[in-house]
Amino acid sequence: MIRHSVIFTLKHPAGSAEEGAFLRDAKILAAIPGVEKFEQLRQVSRKNDYAFGFSMEFADQAAYSGYNDHPDHVAFVRDRWMPEVERFLEIDYVLI
Amino acid sequence: MIRHSVIFTLKHPAGSAEEGAFLRDAKILAAIPGVEKFEQLRQVSRKNDYAFGFSMEFADQAAYSGYNDHPDHVAFVRDRWMPEVERFLEIDYVLI
Repeated sequence: MIRHSVIFTLKHPAGSAEEGAFLRDAKILAAIPGVEKFEQLRQVSRKNDYAFGFSMEFADQAAYSGYNDHPDHVAFVRDRWMPEVERFLEIDYVLI
Repeated sequence: MIRHSVIFTLKHPAGSAEEGAFLRDAKILAAIPGVEKFEQLRQVSRKNDYAFGFSMEFADQAAYSGYNDHPDHVAFVRDRWMPEVERFLEIDYVLI
């Protein structure tokens, strides 16, 4: 199991229609083959200033690579992530 | 549900006995009342240079506060976390 996550902040104002649209449209990622346990999360710790997180799990590296290369992922990164995300940090975990 | 996590790097060399001891001894945190789904994780993305993560869930803020204030947590932070952790980032999530 590989747990892929990204913590991020949008360029949109908090609570804006654009923020809502981004989160809603990002759910297309959950339907990409191999994606399990897709979650949209609000970051609430005051010890960092990121606002959101996405988390998902893959059975193995092949499933993860299939996701990365899937046209819906490639298009989302190009058309929504790049223009609308202010900054982000990718974190990938495996259980010890 | 609040998912509390911390991503971190130890001062110890990778694979060292000290690294193993830190991870082993940190399991005391899992026994603190209110802690659910405690996980020790290896960070494997090349897009950041943290090495490990801990993740746990709390039913609510009261359970989270109880953990923070618990003597076993306070002692672990003072005696192990502060001297042995090189750097870290705390991330707390709630489901959207």
